Amino acid sequence: MYQSFDALSDPSHGAARVAALREKMASLGIDGFLVPRADEHQGEYVAAGSERLRWLTGFSGSAGMALVLANRALIFVDGRYTLQVRDQTDPAVFSYEDLIASRPAKWLEANGAGLRIGFDPWLHTIGEAKNLRSAMEAVGGSLVALAANPVDAVWNDRPAPPTAPVVIHELRYAGKLPREKLRDMAAALAAAKCDHTVLTDPSSLAWAFNIRGNDVPHTPLALGFAIVSAVGEPRLYLDERKLDIEARAYLTQLCTLRAPALLAQDVGEMAHGGARFGLDPGLAAERVKALIEEAGGKVVELADPARLPRAMKNPVEIEGARAAHRRDGAALCDFLAWFARQSPGGVDEIGAATMLEACRTATGERLGHPLLDISFDTISGAGPNGAIMHYRVSQATNRPIGDGELFLVDSGAQYRDGTTDVTRTVIFGEPTAQMRRRFTLVLKGLIAISLARFPEGTRGMDIDAFARRALWSDGLDFAHGTGHGVGSYLSVHEGPQRIARTGAQALKEGMILSNEPGYYKPGAYGIRLENLIVVTPPTPVENGEIAMHGFETLTLAPFDQRVIDTSLFAREEIAWLDAYHARVLEEVGDLVKPETRAWLEQACAPFEAYA
Amino acid sequence: MYQSFDALSDPSHGAARVAALREKMASLGIDGFLVPRADEHQGEYVAAGSERLRWLTGFSGSAGMALVLANRALIFVDGRYTLQVRDQTDPAVFSYEDLIASRPAKWLEANGAGLRIGFDPWLHTIGEAKNLRSAMEAVGGSLVALAANPVDAVWNDRPAPPTAPVVIHELRYAGKLPREKLRDMAAALAAAKCDHTVLTDPSSLAWAFNIRGNDVPHTPLALGFAIVSAVGEPRLYLDERKLDIEARAYLTQLCTLRAPALLAQDVGEMAHGGARFGLDPGLAAERVKALIEEAGGKVVELADPARLPRAMKNPVEIEGARAAHRRDGAALCDFLAWFARQSPGGVDEIGAATMLEACRTATGERLGHPLLDISFDTISGAGPNGAIMHYRVSQATNRPIGDGELFLVDSGAQYRDGTTDVTRTVIFGEPTAQMRRRFTLVLKGLIAISLARFPEGTRGMDIDAFARRALWSDGLDFAHGTGHGVGSYLSVHEGPQRIARTGAQALKEGMILSNEPGYYKPGAYGIRLENLIVVTPPTPVENGEIAMHGFETLTLAPFDQRVIDTSLFAREEIAWLDAYHARVLEEVGDLVKPETRAWLEQACAPFEAYA
Repeated sequence: MYQSFDALSDPSHGAARVAALREKMASLGIDGFLVPRADEHQGEYVAAGSERLRWLTGFSGSAGMALVLANRALIFVDGRYTLQVRDQTDPAVFSYEDLIASRPAKWLEANGAGLRIGFDPWLHTIGEAKNLRSAMEAVGGSLVALAANPVDAVWNDRPAPPTAPVVIHELRYAGKLPREKLRDMAAALAAAKCDHTVLTDPSSLAWAFNIRGNDVPHTPLALGFAIVSAVGEPRLYLDERKLDIEARAYLTQLCTLRAPALLAQDVGEMAHGGARFGLDPGLAAERVKALIEEAGGKVVELADPARLPRAMKNPVEIEGARAAHRRDGAALCDFLAWFARQSPGGVDEIGAATMLEACRTATGERLGHPLLDISFDTISGAGPNGAIMHYRVSQATNRPIGDGELFLVDSGAQYRDGTTDVTRTVIFGEPTAQMRRRFTLVLKGLIAISLARFPEGTRGMDIDAFARRALWSDGLDFAHGTGHGVGSYLSVHEGPQRIARTGAQALKEGMILSNEPGYYKPGAYGIRLENLIVVTPPTPVENGEIAMHGFETLTLAPFDQRVIDTSLFAREEIAWLDAYHARVLEEVGDLVKPETRAWLEQACAPFEAYA
Repeated sequence: MYQSFDALSDPSHGAARVAALREKMASLGIDGFLVPRADEHQGEYVAAGSERLRWLTGFSGSAGMALVLANRALIFVDGRYTLQVRDQTDPAVFSYEDLIASRPAKWLEANGAGLRIGFDPWLHTIGEAKNLRSAMEAVGGSLVALAANPVDAVWNDRPAPPTAPVVIHELRYAGKLPREKLRDMAAALAAAKCDHTVLTDPSSLAWAFNIRGNDVPHTPLALGFAIVSAVGEPRLYLDERKLDIEARAYLTQLCTLRAPALLAQDVGEMAHGGARFGLDPGLAAERVKALIEEAGGKVVELADPARLPRAMKNPVEIEGARAAHRRDGAALCDFLAWFARQSPGGVDEIGAATMLEACRTATGERLGHPLLDISFDTISGAGPNGAIMHYRVSQATNRPIGDGELFLVDSGAQYRDGTTDVTRTVIFGEPTAQMRRRFTLVLKGLIAISLARFPEGTRGMDIDAFARRALWSDGLDFAHGTGHGVGSYLSVHEGPQRIARTGAQALKEGMILSNEPGYYKPGAYGIRLENLIVVTPPTPVENGEIAMHGFETLTLAPFDQRVIDTSLFAREEIAWLDAYHARVLEEVGDLVKPETRAWLEQACAPFEAYA
């Protein structure tokens, strides 16, 4: 299995480890040190040796930061993790702050007068470092960039960096030659009057060079760096142990291969004489900026030039996504059919998640496209656990799925041709009237996004409320965005596209996003319904004037009709749902296990004619 | 009448006036001079003596900028004015640029290398001046602040500044004492760690001191300035000729009255010693910033502290708005009933606009609340003229309203208790199927906004697309925002609230906005439907969890049922429309002229039961 259900951490080491760190801090002459949950690449998943926050504190969430001072230590986490952080860490050692309401910079501005706060400039972005520095300087303190991370000095058995093999991502999946991608990036640099950029995001390396790796969980990344220049060959910094003969031969055609340890020296030499480097202030490490400026180069703001073209999938990638979703839909249908055969109380959250992964593995093998990983730890939540938006089931929280309980399952897969992410909410027995109404309101939100047509330039923020309108009318809402970007056999959370209040990126042809409205009743139940969708090209509308974008739905699995109240639907909504179910049956019906077929036909039956 | 239908300008003076300006420029040692359509207060309407752009060029639009160089002259206007500017100015003297695509700063950065460009720092905001200055400095030129405006030196018969009397805006309309408003503003300054602010927006003076004036068309402003301080009495700078004994006695209780000519000196004295001034970079004149900094003061960014509280109308202002809208709705119904009695071809755009104003005057007199002004020049457009979004009818463009033609009329009024703004689109004879369909889609947009419920923190940009969704589905759109803020017997265009892609301000209780989706078919017809709406307080929803804002509709006038295709409506839409028409009849039915009553009953009849 690609997922563990063990408890992830142990709070009991916190006191000793913080004490060791404090000794080291004293020897460095600093009053405090920041420990973010981040590596040099600012991704969602980090390698084991970069889990410094978890090692130090016990906290295993995917975002957060510790601040260790001489006589107190704090952990900043966001609203998702307020309960978890208290379970996983020692309250005698740590106090807790809200990462959003009281950011570390803000906290330091209020409480850090005169202090010298150390940080590892490889682990903070340029933007973060700027905020922290100005906060410290405003109160007569200073932010001190350290040459080595003091956590590493006291972490005795720290795991070595990963060296998983690099795999070439074939053109039949990537759809575009790396040579062309790199040429376009060089042209973009020249247009922005930059000489070079340093790519620190491994997703950008993966996309630009058509390579994949296995250095972190659930996302097929090879950790490394690259320098792309307006003129001249790109340089790729990868641990040579990751490269077999074939990968080395392939990459040598595209770039100069260099050891990661040489990056600092190379950047310095290239910066010498005033070269202009474009860096993404929200992605690139502060240390890269310092290296350039110390050598006399100039840093200007430039969005990672791989980011937007990577988000706009080409026709080959979209066709791959369709195939991956047919396969993944068949696996999910096998799971849902199995689930429907179980009895209330006869299956628990771990059992369900385990069966779901087994269905994916079996389907991948049967159809000749193996499951390469799950795209994130499956969220498998029954009853009240379904109301915890980022629930991770463990042996300690595992719960049987009882009669009349909603069961929320949010999962995804990594196949060579695409990344999936899907949520369905199903029930054993009869839902209450309130469950049906609210499930239907959530589904109305999903359908509103699915049916949307919109002109060029429309941003995710412009349509986010389409998914909320029906819930708002009932005095309800959900506390997360409607959709995130999704990569092509890459990260399941990809920017810059999103459907959210903060989604300022225009939605462009080929972008893949999730469409996942929800409703959560704390202590009772949760509902989330999620399809992946892809932005279609501007298309003329009959009798219309403006070619409009829309969405093609990729995900193929039925919604549980027992929890739908069709009286709340407009005609176009019921028509969408019937057409969607017909399509699921047509595209997935021949791919499922034989014993799934009858259930699927029933689950995809059209609703009775709508008055 | 408050509106003229004459041609507003004469292109024939341009050559001589530009020549005179160039002589003056040469004597000042500058290579170019910028002439914005702006005064010291950055409002939509300016006094006659501030119409420098119109005087110099002939162009009478409400936004634009000329740039006069030694051997060429340009006018920058936005998309609304591309045709008008060519009619009103001499193409032998001026060339034309797009104000949005090619901003003056951008144009100068591309074409102004090494030039010394003069500007009048009273007529440009801090933000504008910053952009212009950095553009010039990037190309080795400079932006030169002039002590006197060279246009004024060559404009011989330039009108004197206005001195219309200041009128006290009584508490029964204002709803809050100026003493309390000024105290709140002082507290806001202290909270922002500012010692002072300079208010340059006459709307802020009007709101803070509960005064109104008549210095510019259509908006009851007294032009002037104020300095509000965290500690100490406010200072108000008004021409003393505007103050009768009563106004002077009233204002003396609230502030120190000073002559406008003393502002510069006072600011300098207050800035001496390093005082901190909060200034709104999008509103305050660059000259104010320079005065402060030259005297040793510090300028920090601070939104005009009157802006947000002014936008959130208090209960007395909202009750006034309701009364003003009943009265104004009665006048509009009288007009629409009169219109329905006319024959195709028997009434033209000017005739209609004239009758509409006469109906407002008569209703105001009859109901004891006189019409004090129209809130903007009535847009009265038949057939293809209705497709021109900011059409101003003149003798030259006047057009009879023919059979089967849509007629768009967008108008508003100023009453002591409120400002109105309403658009209806009506027809003589039978609409085409396309007209009916598109009219109904626009109306669906208006209804979607009217029915919206939304949680605290929702911004105008979050719901703008509600008004477009039905049009987008048909491949249509409209090229303006859905709604602008509206003042309380103040400007008909008021910030910061808007419903638009750029509407980043959260919608708060008491804000008045327009709700005006449209559709424009160039050369054929235009449709716009506009109601004013007010944000209601957060209100619990039955069986819901979150108290939700919504909108109360203020405007009261029927929509032309002959142009509505009810088959396109959902049940909730038809229910809204029937309830709205019933309310119009109930609230306005007793206020209209006797001959209007029968028409109104017909126009407000419910639709046949909806299957």
